[in-house]
Amino acid sequence: MKVLIVFAHPEPNSLNGVMKDLAAKTLRDNDHEVKISDLYSMRFKAVLDQDDFSQRKDNEIFNPMMEQVNAVGTGSLSQDIKDEVEKIKWADIIIFQFPVWWTAPPAILIGWIDRVFLPGVVHNIAEGKMYDTGLLRGKKTMLSFTTGATRDIYSSEGPHGDLDEIFKFITHNILELTGLEVLDSFGLYGPAVISKEQVKEELEKFKETINSL
Amino acid sequence: MKVLIVFAHPEPNSLNGVMKDLAAKTLRDNDHEVKISDLYSMRFKAVLDQDDFSQRKDNEIFNPMMEQVNAVGTGSLSQDIKDEVEKIKWADIIIFQFPVWWTAPPAILIGWIDRVFLPGVVHNIAEGKMYDTGLLRGKKTMLSFTTGATRDIYSSEGPHGDLDEIFKFITHNILELTGLEVLDSFGLYGPAVISKEQVKEELEKFKETINSL
Repeated sequence: MKVLIVFAHPEPNSLNGVMKDLAAKTLRDNDHEVKISDLYSMRFKAVLDQDDFSQRKDNEIFNPMMEQVNAVGTGSLSQDIKDEVEKIKWADIIIFQFPVWWTAPPAILIGWIDRVFLPGVVHNIAEGKMYDTGLLRGKKTMLSFTTGATRDIYSSEGPHGDLDEIFKFITHNILELTGLEVLDSFGLYGPAVISKEQVKEELEKFKETINSL
Repeated sequence: MKVLIVFAHPEPNSLNGVMKDLAAKTLRDNDHEVKISDLYSMRFKAVLDQDDFSQRKDNEIFNPMMEQVNAVGTGSLSQDIKDEVEKIKWADIIIFQFPVWWTAPPAILIGWIDRVFLPGVVHNIAEGKMYDTGLLRGKKTMLSFTTGATRDIYSSEGPHGDLDEIFKFITHNILELTGLEVLDSFGLYGPAVISKEQVKEELEKFKETINSL
């Protein structure tokens, strides 16, 4: 199996870094192939803008979606985007590893979606190819994240609400729209608040989850 | 009244640009003061990373939240962040104007939140100051956005789901958490699909909405 891990934390030695390394090792121990897009280390460009398009369809008004369609058609995508598209096409499973900041992934990961999840590559909305007919169908994906708040704060009765529900903007509106099969998320809640022993137990659970992929 | 418009579209002549200008003109015609953070024109740094902190609390491991708390305490925030914090403190209302890309704001706006919505400035979770006791209480906010898909696609029965519900990750988990009073969002749905006449009518409605602030 071919697994792409998209990793978005600025500190390699963070708990997110430990989880990324643990996932990669566990997968390789099981004879799976692993590629990692370490967005911070790559200094991945987070912002979709005019600089992404060397051959503009319209030099007057910049319409991002129209330029994306054009660049996919002419093969004039910038190299950093091409590289990520190749990894997506290569992968059977895409794992996203990130800290939850402001109930969302860090901007660098949102920017990876903005720039890499291209029309004609992950969907073709103009031709109705999305969700069940999305262009990434047959592949799987999984969110793996840490939070600042504990699980009770993120429960349906808690002040923040149920994070799995809130994250449907990612799991449904982004990932399922492309045809990806979305596996259950792995959330490590409140690692700074729970005991070290509990963090260790959570990492064991995470390893089991990765083992069962 | 003092109004901050945070604008996140790469094309000044886009419909989002038109809406930003219409809001600013309408407000000024009503004798309100307006400041605009045009994130793309400012080339606002979207990515929260080590470079934001000239005086690190911990030089070994980079813990973003801990460094934010420290930088707020020592006054060592980077200048671009300080400038935005000043605008937030100045404003009575913050309007966010953006295109919906992938059921979320563009990464540059998520990055503005990641970097500018600082502990000790917008909340103090350690002391329980959030939601009703968030540090921005007394101020108001409003989302104004355009979408690619039409309103029926974004209805509760549509394939994408109800966008106002989905956007609770912004309106509740980000904005209300800081104590901001969140006004009804203004969504201009599917401007590329509906008629020019309909877009004009929507802009009239938008002007009325801004007039009634």
